[in-house]
Amino acid sequence: MTIYNFSAGPAVLPKAVLQQAQAELADWQGSGMSVMEMSHRGKEYMGIHAQAEADLRELMGIPANYKVLFLQGGAHLQFSMIPLNLLRGKASADYLNTGEWSKKAIGEAKKFGGVNVVADNKDKNCSYVPAFDTWKCDPNAAFLHYTPNETIGGVEFNWVPETGDVPLVADMSSNILSRVIDVSKFGLIYAGAQKNIGPAGLTLVIVRDDLIGQVPAGTPTMLDYKTHADNDSMYNTPPTFAIYMAGLVFQWLKKSGGIAAMEQTNILKANLLYAAIDSSNGFYNCPVNHADRSRMNVPFTLKDAALDSDFLKQADARGLLQLKGHRSVGGMRASIYNAMTVEGVQALVEFMGEFAKSHG
Amino acid sequence: MTIYNFSAGPAVLPKAVLQQAQAELADWQGSGMSVMEMSHRGKEYMGIHAQAEADLRELMGIPANYKVLFLQGGAHLQFSMIPLNLLRGKASADYLNTGEWSKKAIGEAKKFGGVNVVADNKDKNCSYVPAFDTWKCDPNAAFLHYTPNETIGGVEFNWVPETGDVPLVADMSSNILSRVIDVSKFGLIYAGAQKNIGPAGLTLVIVRDDLIGQVPAGTPTMLDYKTHADNDSMYNTPPTFAIYMAGLVFQWLKKSGGIAAMEQTNILKANLLYAAIDSSNGFYNCPVNHADRSRMNVPFTLKDAALDSDFLKQADARGLLQLKGHRSVGGMRASIYNAMTVEGVQALVEFMGEFAKSHG
Repeated sequence: MTIYNFSAGPAVLPKAVLQQAQAELADWQGSGMSVMEMSHRGKEYMGIHAQAEADLRELMGIPANYKVLFLQGGAHLQFSMIPLNLLRGKASADYLNTGEWSKKAIGEAKKFGGVNVVADNKDKNCSYVPAFDTWKCDPNAAFLHYTPNETIGGVEFNWVPETGDVPLVADMSSNILSRVIDVSKFGLIYAGAQKNIGPAGLTLVIVRDDLIGQVPAGTPTMLDYKTHADNDSMYNTPPTFAIYMAGLVFQWLKKSGGIAAMEQTNILKANLLYAAIDSSNGFYNCPVNHADRSRMNVPFTLKDAALDSDFLKQADARGLLQLKGHRSVGGMRASIYNAMTVEGVQALVEFMGEFAKSHG
Repeated sequence: MTIYNFSAGPAVLPKAVLQQAQAELADWQGSGMSVMEMSHRGKEYMGIHAQAEADLRELMGIPANYKVLFLQGGAHLQFSMIPLNLLRGKASADYLNTGEWSKKAIGEAKKFGGVNVVADNKDKNCSYVPAFDTWKCDPNAAFLHYTPNETIGGVEFNWVPETGDVPLVADMSSNILSRVIDVSKFGLIYAGAQKNIGPAGLTLVIVRDDLIGQVPAGTPTMLDYKTHADNDSMYNTPPTFAIYMAGLVFQWLKKSGGIAAMEQTNILKANLLYAAIDSSNGFYNCPVNHADRSRMNVPFTLKDAALDSDFLKQADARGLLQLKGHRSVGGMRASIYNAMTVEGVQALVEFMGEFAKSHG
């Protein structure tokens, strides 16, 4: 049986990547060593590390005045590192609140300085992106933080806020590499790896040079971007195998036509799934405002929640895995990241149609 | 050619572990998923995670009043987390300085409170363990930190300091699981995984319950042990694949007879190598005081440093890899962790003998 894994993260990886990793797991390219066994200061691993960064820079068109950092600790550690590094003596930062992940970022930021919430979407149960002209931005904010894709709520921006001189900071954990973006519009982009990049345990940070090196005294050395920027992410031992896996994903993306091609496939997959929901005569429902629906995380409910467990059991039996919605929202969620194939989405859509027919 | 990898870390892994990881890399036990693709909240990964902890507890005999935490950020992040969590309002902590890694811990601790260096070994180029009766301990210290094995200097404790009510904190990055220890003598034990545990990107912390939960206000949530202790190391997405690999290593240790058996093999390996050095009529020299020589990291120099590059080239050609000493001390270093076989050490000893003969 073919398995299709709709986990929100850690999530499905490209089959070709797993096959290559498996083939060379115990002996990387005739070195006699697993990548996991290599000194991070040795020429073999240094080559892997440098290639991963170079490929990412090419894929995303990262300008030369941005550093690419391979860190640990996930988005959660970034929730601290961002205010510690980017407040730069200013009193407060702007945060947009569009759901669970925004809320976590905001809660942590309050430990380090003032937080001005420019807008939220609580009036409609976090189901839309507030229009930019309603945001109450502070022109003196140290930065503006937002979550371009809310993994739990399934709300995604299809535009980039124009914040002028205020550096724009984006948690792209669940949509990085899924669509073309102009990195130069951002001060800092960060992403946990375990959705569109590679295995858990790696955090990507892309940060503009001028924002580095202004942490307050007493900041842990490991929480200062400068520590990592000055040492090519090798101040301490990096998560070498996770970076190697990310490098294989970057290579796969290049072979697949790059991010522009991936974006087209992602649009196709999302359209397929939302069409199945919208054409179900209310058997399925996606609560998210049409214009703001995520291409990556598709939450939906069944008209009759009593059918949820049946739906999940039958889906499982057909190899359609990890469709249960986040505990905070219930229902279902299909995460359809880059590595989810069109065939996987088609199989889900087909099952949803059959299930609706037999239970409608 | 058989490869023997003497890297100081990331380091050699047991062959059986790599083979199992390779076999199930793309499909873990018929789940249709790689471990890397599993939700950390799913039953498959939860089982792997719980088993790894249970096996470690069994191997080390960890008492019930200690938490086992699977973290990220390496020993370097612990250098901050330890004072942040363990100072508990006290003015200062005691630190022993026995070499490079002690120094790093001390440098970082000064950011968070007073540091009283109880003793050091600088008078003899960091080549010995200072006798306990020379330590100038503060009875009011928040804790005493030491480095039971200095990876760079090759200096290892064969005894445990008795610090009474002052919690003992040990950086066991390079000798954890290599010898039997009584965990109950310690307040906190920590170790980066990439030597005796598994791949880089995982940090193990074993901490006594009463030391958890007293960080100062403003501490990043991710740097508070309580955050992780209260959530079974799943407050955020853990480095799942690294924990899985560590679990395989723990299983391998159990099958190999546990830590007591491993310790006997480690003694044998170290004796072999030190005997080769000491019987070379000064062709090779280990600068470390005999009683304090590390079983894990064996630094040695050649009488004629002009032969260093020849030695390394010929060793490489025979599959004896990564023998170059740390840049701060020069010469050679053979790291012979748990996963290094007796055969590997024998091959090295044989080569060293031949090289000495042909260049003596």
